[in-house]
Amino acid sequence: MNLILLLPGDLEAEGQRARLEGRRLAHVADIQRTKVGDVLRVGLLNGRVGTGRVTRLGDTLELDLQLDSAPPASLPATLIIALPRPRILKRVLHAATTLGIKKLVLLAARRVERSFWNSKAVHPEAIREQLILGLEQARDTVLPEVVLAPHFRPFVEGPLPELVSGTLGLVAHPGAPTPCPRGPLERPITLAIGPEGGFNDFEIEKLATAGLEPVHLGERILRVDAAVSALLGRLF
Amino acid sequence: MNLILLLPGDLEAEGQRARLEGRRLAHVADIQRTKVGDVLRVGLLNGRVGTGRVTRLGDTLELDLQLDSAPPASLPATLIIALPRPRILKRVLHAATTLGIKKLVLLAARRVERSFWNSKAVHPEAIREQLILGLEQARDTVLPEVVLAPHFRPFVEGPLPELVSGTLGLVAHPGAPTPCPRGPLERPITLAIGPEGGFNDFEIEKLATAGLEPVHLGERILRVDAAVSALLGRLF
Repeated sequence: MNLILLLPGDLEAEGQRARLEGRRLAHVADIQRTKVGDVLRVGLLNGRVGTGRVTRLGDTLELDLQLDSAPPASLPATLIIALPRPRILKRVLHAATTLGIKKLVLLAARRVERSFWNSKAVHPEAIREQLILGLEQARDTVLPEVVLAPHFRPFVEGPLPELVSGTLGLVAHPGAPTPCPRGPLERPITLAIGPEGGFNDFEIEKLATAGLEPVHLGERILRVDAAVSALLGRLF
Repeated sequence: MNLILLLPGDLEAEGQRARLEGRRLAHVADIQRTKVGDVLRVGLLNGRVGTGRVTRLGDTLELDLQLDSAPPASLPATLIIALPRPRILKRVLHAATTLGIKKLVLLAARRVERSFWNSKAVHPEAIREQLILGLEQARDTVLPEVVLAPHFRPFVEGPLPELVSGTLGLVAHPGAPTPCPRGPLERPITLAIGPEGGFNDFEIEKLATAGLEPVHLGERILRVDAAVSALLGRLF
């Protein structure tokens, strides 16, 4: 937790003070070993970042706030991920959030097991938990939007072309003839990453028709969590 | 498992055949739903890659081998990581292996908890397990070397300068004045990544003296597993 993320309900005194309990209190008290008078890095969900001076630390944590800076810039990129297995999904949500992604689509594909859509990791609260942890890690405040697209064709033939419009559209596909470009790039990006085993030929063709060019990252097959970070590291 | 990694003890008939049991048999039978006659992608540990035709599938898996290709190129990079917490260490070992790292140093630092060195994840067998899984994921065969450096100064003042010699030495350090360079680069790389909370000033100074220039990846603080992939994606 590199930043304490405040929710609107934590604020008092017209936003000059915050009062916290639970996980954030425990972290500050037990892990950061904070004392009264210490100054902590804080941010308001979807708002500004700054400092919080500890005025009380016991059954609650009270902070005097000074929220005077903008959160870090976001990545001009929409990420489309074939829904990975639950354990990997958590990591992908966390990693994509720390890297600054603000729009993420979880997409069906032939090689995505249908049972993944019923896992707890896809529940809105479970997704939100990883996004919040990612924001706290990256010292960001702006909650990403996560869209579920549990049917491939309606998404790819429906909203996808408009999403891609005006951006550089890419789909990471081992074996594609073109290497993935390197940043810095002049346009925002729409980047799709397939499931274990990859998108199949039909899916690649449909994604290409929607404006996503297949590109590769070399001979090695990365797991999706490593692929997300490696691709975004290369593109930005 | 994108490649079945064979160990020398699996081979028969002067390396023309392999006989497997246990985890790899279970994966091929239960997850890949393989049948006799199918052709699988295989590789020999620290050797060549190729195909294995299934000649028997029951209490053992038997393969006729054709190992005719080189494994994918490795990354010309040595990675030095402040030892992360056990759960993250596993992921870092896996990700670094899939990305093609062949030498990895796990380093002590002020902000590395000493208890991490006693965790099961640091045992040679636990490390080897993640390396093998990483090789299977990336279709590689060449086992990385992992070096434990549980004392900071003896490593940084001892072997480090020679390790850095002839390479581009970098240490990822949020707040450093210089941005991390982008690939393709003309020299091999020695890249160090700090613990949660970063290397402290003394450590950064010692690493710089040994030839590692502090560089940053922007304002965001990444967790080490995402940082490894993002940095290597950017540098290569």
